[in-house]
Amino acid sequence: MFPGGYDRGVQNTPIPMADGPDAERCDAVRNRALLLEAATALVSERGADAVTMDAVAERAGVGKGTVFRRFGSRSGLMQSLLDHSEHELQGAFLTGPPPLGPGADAVARLIAFGRARLAIVELQGDTLRAVEVSPELRFGGPARQVSLTHVVALLRQTGAAGDLELLAQALLATLEAGLVLYQIRELHMPVDRIADGWETLVRLVTGTPSAG
Amino acid sequence: MFPGGYDRGVQNTPIPMADGPDAERCDAVRNRALLLEAATALVSERGADAVTMDAVAERAGVGKGTVFRRFGSRSGLMQSLLDHSEHELQGAFLTGPPPLGPGADAVARLIAFGRARLAIVELQGDTLRAVEVSPELRFGGPARQVSLTHVVALLRQTGAAGDLELLAQALLATLEAGLVLYQIRELHMPVDRIADGWETLVRLVTGTPSAG
Repeated sequence: MFPGGYDRGVQNTPIPMADGPDAERCDAVRNRALLLEAATALVSERGADAVTMDAVAERAGVGKGTVFRRFGSRSGLMQSLLDHSEHELQGAFLTGPPPLGPGADAVARLIAFGRARLAIVELQGDTLRAVEVSPELRFGGPARQVSLTHVVALLRQTGAAGDLELLAQALLATLEAGLVLYQIRELHMPVDRIADGWETLVRLVTGTPSAG
Repeated sequence: MFPGGYDRGVQNTPIPMADGPDAERCDAVRNRALLLEAATALVSERGADAVTMDAVAERAGVGKGTVFRRFGSRSGLMQSLLDHSEHELQGAFLTGPPPLGPGADAVARLIAFGRARLAIVELQGDTLRAVEVSPELRFGGPARQVSLTHVVALLRQTGAAGDLELLAQALLATLEAGLVLYQIRELHMPVDRIADGWETLVRLVTGTPSAG
């Protein structure tokens, strides 16, 4: 269902085994998860700027060398952090519980998708925006492709007609980190307002008035 | 109606007078218009890359020194070219003939606005995209402010309710040079398709089905 893009987006997490080299590999995976967890906690508590190699090492209770061995550099760490968030979001909308995952109706899933993405932008917007500076990654990156395919599929389920690819791109454009950070920081819009705006847009585009 | 932003967006073109320093000033204005016309012709015939100081001078039949005196550098020239296009677009939607200008209904004006902007992106997208790399100019620049105010006003006229500022920003996000150039160049979408997508989006958002 999500060829290419999705496989690249999802990290190759090997199934952990009990012995020998697999046990080592298992340690590496656990280690990596531990470090990303530490970095995520730092971002949400103190913002992206607080994520230094030192701070992550301290938080995770490992040596700084371990962090460097695992991610190479701070920008490698930030990129892995984003991949991790994307991976989690993808898992949530593909196989997670409703309303983000299957089981809810398509409009509710679209609304939940935007709200979930806005939450990522709020926490990791600076890293996302740095990635978005490259037009190829901004619009053509694997994570974007998966999101686009997902939004197109949901739009189709709502019965929307016409050029769904363009419509999906229009919707995704409103969730871009550059725009959302500008709305939050320069226009001082609360994220809740931006999320409500997303819901309004989805309802207008799909012809689904609010239940309330 | 367009405080601040609009005044900054519109160039300070002095009213030409017949004598003395005013005549000189009048020459300068005419000169500038001549050079921008030459540059515009070059862009539309051979693309933005063809616009060099030499080529503009040759095309306008003046010395290269004149072009440098007027614009300082190639990037100064490209910026002036953009200002010029923005100025023309603003003139067209504020006081020009319908459907872009007053006289048409608000939905038709919104549709015409997007089509006109897409035409600018098609011709001058590279320059626009270079400007968009700065988030402040991308979302906060004077030209953007004028467009935003215009779109909000038209949305209000259509009877659209809710958070019109966010809705206007969502609409404008789909016309950004970075996205549009990606659609044209990487996805090989014809500009007509993108323009039709804009019309669809406007009709959905304003609840105005196509007449056809």
